[in-house]
Amino acid sequence: MERQLDNELQHVRQQLLRLGGLVEQMIADAMKALTDRDGDLCDAVVTRDAEVDHLEKEIDDECRTLMATQQPTAVDLRFLVAAMKITNDLERVGDSAKNIARHSKHLIKDPPLKPYIDLPILSRLAREMLHGSLDAFVGGDVELAMEVWNRDDEVDDLYAQIFRELLTYMLEDPSTVTRGLNLILISSNLERIADHATNISEDVIYFIEGRDIRHTANPA
Amino acid sequence: MERQLDNELQHVRQQLLRLGGLVEQMIADAMKALTDRDGDLCDAVVTRDAEVDHLEKEIDDECRTLMATQQPTAVDLRFLVAAMKITNDLERVGDSAKNIARHSKHLIKDPPLKPYIDLPILSRLAREMLHGSLDAFVGGDVELAMEVWNRDDEVDDLYAQIFRELLTYMLEDPSTVTRGLNLILISSNLERIADHATNISEDVIYFIEGRDIRHTANPA
Repeated sequence: MERQLDNELQHVRQQLLRLGGLVEQMIADAMKALTDRDGDLCDAVVTRDAEVDHLEKEIDDECRTLMATQQPTAVDLRFLVAAMKITNDLERVGDSAKNIARHSKHLIKDPPLKPYIDLPILSRLAREMLHGSLDAFVGGDVELAMEVWNRDDEVDDLYAQIFRELLTYMLEDPSTVTRGLNLILISSNLERIADHATNISEDVIYFIEGRDIRHTANPA
Repeated sequence: MERQLDNELQHVRQQLLRLGGLVEQMIADAMKALTDRDGDLCDAVVTRDAEVDHLEKEIDDECRTLMATQQPTAVDLRFLVAAMKITNDLERVGDSAKNIARHSKHLIKDPPLKPYIDLPILSRLAREMLHGSLDAFVGGDVELAMEVWNRDDEVDDLYAQIFRELLTYMLEDPSTVTRGLNLILISSNLERIADHATNISEDVIYFIEGRDIRHTANPA
């Protein structure tokens, strides 16, 4: 019986990684579509969100069924609760990637406002955090989860800087308003993705250690 | 034993309503702060978010403890899963209300860009949806949950209209850029609050009927 549950939990873990890989790729593609000015790739990202929604539902159903039929206890129950929360976060990451692709589609109609330097850094940071949080989940690695959790401030600072810079452009040259706005909304979606990675790290720490670090000050 | 669990579930329900009431008031106050140009009220909303975070943690811990110690089955388990998901959504609504208050604080430094007409409608719509989804949860009212779920398109349309109008202002008169941007970001947060209300409705329907309506087409 226990062995059967182990197999099923392993399946949940694999599905969750599949979902993670899917949304990571969507973020990367949405940003690539922007820099390569590739409208078809924008459309492809938007379309792929349906796959994310479908997979989310599948994982969620699987977790709920296991909870209801197997009466898992202690660490298994914590795993299932964490898996459901992480799935939810990943689905919203997919939504954000879709939003980025939509804004990119608008942006590529005009010449770039400026060379994209900080935006790809923000995107890489957000994807690294997401990847790290899922690695931490699979490897049961609390240290890695804490590392991800600590990087959220870095993202917030970079987002604030990008925001200020774009606003300056928009104020100085009205012809940049539409592009500036779309770039701000892309940045805001990347910042939200990093937030989801932070949430996932918190769920990982709870799953492994049974302790809750939400809404506590970041450690020094 | 069963009676003890009932009391504890009732307590979770009450705490959840307290959290719902708190974030609803935060949204209302953040918008009032904007129209009344009340900087102190903006600050008060931002401060109150710590209370939301604290209450979220409390409810989440309570649900996790009940799951782990009481081995609830069927409807009780579905209730606890729904309660944890709803709590998570309400915490993010609190974050959005805090964001609105911050953007309002920036906006009230300058004269209003235009009389606020559509924005209060969007805010009322979002709050009504949130309130309805929580009423549906407490009353076990599937019909009400479906009603809320169906209103999400209305919100999306109004948001798109506000976005277009503000962008037009920004393009025609560069002196409106900063204000237009802050108003767009407020609208975007209101739209996200309505999304959370939609999520809550889905969780309510799952809790009551055990069926999942996520990512299906809205019924005619």
